Amino acid sequence: MNRAAIVGGGVIGGGWAARFALNGWDVRIYDPDPEAERKIGEVLANARRSLPGLADAPMPPEGALSFHPSIAEAVSGAAWIQESVPERLDIKHLTLAEIQRACDASAVIGSSTSGFRPSQLQEGALRPGQIMVAHPFNPVYLLPLIELVTPGTDEAAVTRATGILESIGMHPLRLRKEIDAHVADRFLEAVWREALWLVKDGIATTEEIDNAIRYGFGIRWAQMGLFETYRVAGGEAGMKHFMAQFGPALKWPWTRLMDVPEFTEDLVDLIAGQSDAQSGDRSIRELERIRDTNLVAMMRALKGQDWGAGALLRAQDARMKSGTALAGGLEAAGDLSQPILTLARAVPLDWTDYNGHMTESRYLDAFAQATDRFMEMIGCDSDYIAAGGSYFTAETHIRHLDEALAGHRIAVHTRMLLGAGKKLHLFHTMTRGETVLATGEHFLLHVDLETRRPCAPSAPIEAALARITAAQKDLPWPEGAGAAIRAPS
Amino acid sequence: MNRAAIVGGGVIGGGWAARFALNGWDVRIYDPDPEAERKIGEVLANARRSLPGLADAPMPPEGALSFHPSIAEAVSGAAWIQESVPERLDIKHLTLAEIQRACDASAVIGSSTSGFRPSQLQEGALRPGQIMVAHPFNPVYLLPLIELVTPGTDEAAVTRATGILESIGMHPLRLRKEIDAHVADRFLEAVWREALWLVKDGIATTEEIDNAIRYGFGIRWAQMGLFETYRVAGGEAGMKHFMAQFGPALKWPWTRLMDVPEFTEDLVDLIAGQSDAQSGDRSIRELERIRDTNLVAMMRALKGQDWGAGALLRAQDARMKSGTALAGGLEAAGDLSQPILTLARAVPLDWTDYNGHMTESRYLDAFAQATDRFMEMIGCDSDYIAAGGSYFTAETHIRHLDEALAGHRIAVHTRMLLGAGKKLHLFHTMTRGETVLATGEHFLLHVDLETRRPCAPSAPIEAALARITAAQKDLPWPEGAGAAIRAPS
Repeated sequence: MNRAAIVGGGVIGGGWAARFALNGWDVRIYDPDPEAERKIGEVLANARRSLPGLADAPMPPEGALSFHPSIAEAVSGAAWIQESVPERLDIKHLTLAEIQRACDASAVIGSSTSGFRPSQLQEGALRPGQIMVAHPFNPVYLLPLIELVTPGTDEAAVTRATGILESIGMHPLRLRKEIDAHVADRFLEAVWREALWLVKDGIATTEEIDNAIRYGFGIRWAQMGLFETYRVAGGEAGMKHFMAQFGPALKWPWTRLMDVPEFTEDLVDLIAGQSDAQSGDRSIRELERIRDTNLVAMMRALKGQDWGAGALLRAQDARMKSGTALAGGLEAAGDLSQPILTLARAVPLDWTDYNGHMTESRYLDAFAQATDRFMEMIGCDSDYIAAGGSYFTAETHIRHLDEALAGHRIAVHTRMLLGAGKKLHLFHTMTRGETVLATGEHFLLHVDLETRRPCAPSAPIEAALARITAAQKDLPWPEGAGAAIRAPS
Repeated sequence: MNRAAIVGGGVIGGGWAARFALNGWDVRIYDPDPEAERKIGEVLANARRSLPGLADAPMPPEGALSFHPSIAEAVSGAAWIQESVPERLDIKHLTLAEIQRACDASAVIGSSTSGFRPSQLQEGALRPGQIMVAHPFNPVYLLPLIELVTPGTDEAAVTRATGILESIGMHPLRLRKEIDAHVADRFLEAVWREALWLVKDGIATTEEIDNAIRYGFGIRWAQMGLFETYRVAGGEAGMKHFMAQFGPALKWPWTRLMDVPEFTEDLVDLIAGQSDAQSGDRSIRELERIRDTNLVAMMRALKGQDWGAGALLRAQDARMKSGTALAGGLEAAGDLSQPILTLARAVPLDWTDYNGHMTESRYLDAFAQATDRFMEMIGCDSDYIAAGGSYFTAETHIRHLDEALAGHRIAVHTRMLLGAGKKLHLFHTMTRGETVLATGEHFLLHVDLETRRPCAPSAPIEAALARITAAQKDLPWPEGAGAAIRAPS
């Protein structure tokens, strides 16, 4: 079992703990705050609700979380040590020194610092080359970006860090030069300063500014960022044209950022008051859950398009499925004489209603994913489809027998009732543990994608279907299969 | 028919034209560019593909688009006139003067200017109070934000403008004070300047910057903006705590914005080169389609959560349905002796596969929406559910008979096969024009949400079901209803 150490809890350390634990790592925590266990428990509860359903693959079993009275005990045997103590260089130095006295020389030491450069952290360290900035974004268990700032870090440590971050679904953005606040926070700081001016000058309230962002460029940036968005805006004439058009604005007074607003109590009161008016009717816990549900829904929307953060999620699914019964051909599928595992996943937040129950139409989403896996197994994959053949669903019959909630781990096993010539008749059973939640019966026809008419599949697919037919021939007819809908008494 | 005039085409003017036309307005365009018709046609094609499916309601029939040789002819009889000519004050003044010589005094004149203040535009105008800044965001047909900057504008004109913008699905953010670049573009300018420094200083490439945005804070901002995001990050201690924590950073060198990079040819080449390397394997048209599909998918994801831009879409649906057969009780439903209209909508981009075909599981989404409308019609609405009763789907049988593509307008009509006691048996038929695409047969049970056990619905619901039973009693049994799945020969 992989082991991570979290030094310093809070929202950020807790987020790291949750991401590691839900990805199957044992996590050892050091945090002198007497409230640490409660606080990290709350972050973990949010993460359990939202992270597993981001995947269309089974997450590994959750790792163990433990709390330790000393840094030395927490970091012992850890492959990754994450420092998330307060942003004061003297505290960081003391903490890093204590970590290095006790940890493995091969461990990665990442710092969550928003502003310090690695060279500042490495100053006077026992093994400076072991230390790097690994700056995450809140909520750490959902957002994939990590700024990995590595001047002065050993190349071998960077390689290990990159592999580990990718294995837990993160995207390390490696920065080989160091500057204050790295990259992303420079934008945040610029926008923050400009926003303080706008509120202070009475141009717009905090709520109006939030709306100006989320009804406009915020949605654009969630998928293409700054430059690609402008490239598109520039049209066929391209990026040079765009820059020529907006270059002169650099000399115009379009920002107040030549200057910084004075951080007075009045300004704090003004902004805190507006923020209360804007969001005050919801607790922070409630806002966190809303935020996480929104992020899951949008990231899964991008996943449907295989784009941006959604493309990262797809890559992570493939990594998690690789080498399991959920990837590869019939050989990987295990015992064919029983219904075949075709889906194992958590119910994602965007599949549920406001009460957290999985909504009706999402059962078909799950069954469609199970059918897709069956297709991959018999060789009807993207290459085969590109070559002009595919199966179309002609009929579907779903029986809802029990309920599932957000975060529940569900599985689908598939019985092939008929697989011959152009015809394919599947019977999916969805379970949670021993409980049957639903059955999905599907009749499919193999079609020629050019003529859109039914025809027999390729010889390798026919052979795969014959193997399953032979293996499953003694299974009893499933209860409920082939039954018409009629009013039960 | 409402009439809008678009003065100046291009990406922005074309986007305005598309939004008005798809919302049922006749649009008259003046643009001296000989390529205007082609360019606006391309924007309109993108809009037709993406906008109608954002709605879960039927869009009005598309308005007529016409091109006119003079401003006077274009603006004649228009209720909204949108100026989107190049960003030069002398051109804006000449254009606005020509508009005001010919247009109705009651028309709204909006300017798409990114940077000019209304007082600059109103200078020397015939009727300054008629002119306002109505600054949109690209793509104008999808993003809802409009900065409505109104110092010097007549209050009556602002009221008219607000009503019209909301009726075409936009969110007017009214700014009563004017500053250069309004609000949103000040953030864009700040981020743009910071980004130019990062590229120039070799800290990060354009692609790395885009990833730093879209894998991290960009997704956050798409749903909560800046202040609400930070409020959550501040935790229970609230906004004051957050500000106290990050206040000192205002004095730190966390941005380069005390200074502005020199706009040299070298800088342009550097950025254009990196942008080519990042996105150059895709054409602008392709990137536009990807962007629009991403935006639709994310905005619809937010719609599922009734949040941010998604909440605006829901409000717009309600407006579009109000007064039609798709809102209200049985009285609104029209002739009950025939299958009842329960859904009319376009197939949205996020319901389709990479070939543009509506994917299997989305047929059930459409049928579930039709069932929801049936529920609303018989009085099983959110109040009823909150009071403890609801219908659960026990079985579903879908037959796929033909295909639908993104943007196709589909309808569902619903026959009630049985509605008595706890039992409800519906038969939905999905059509596109005369073509039957699919049927959906659903058996539902009324349940007590506390005991989760079946029971009879309320007396008003029973009465509504009895009315439909009586009205539909002579309809023939629908072909395909009550049929089990069996392998057709």
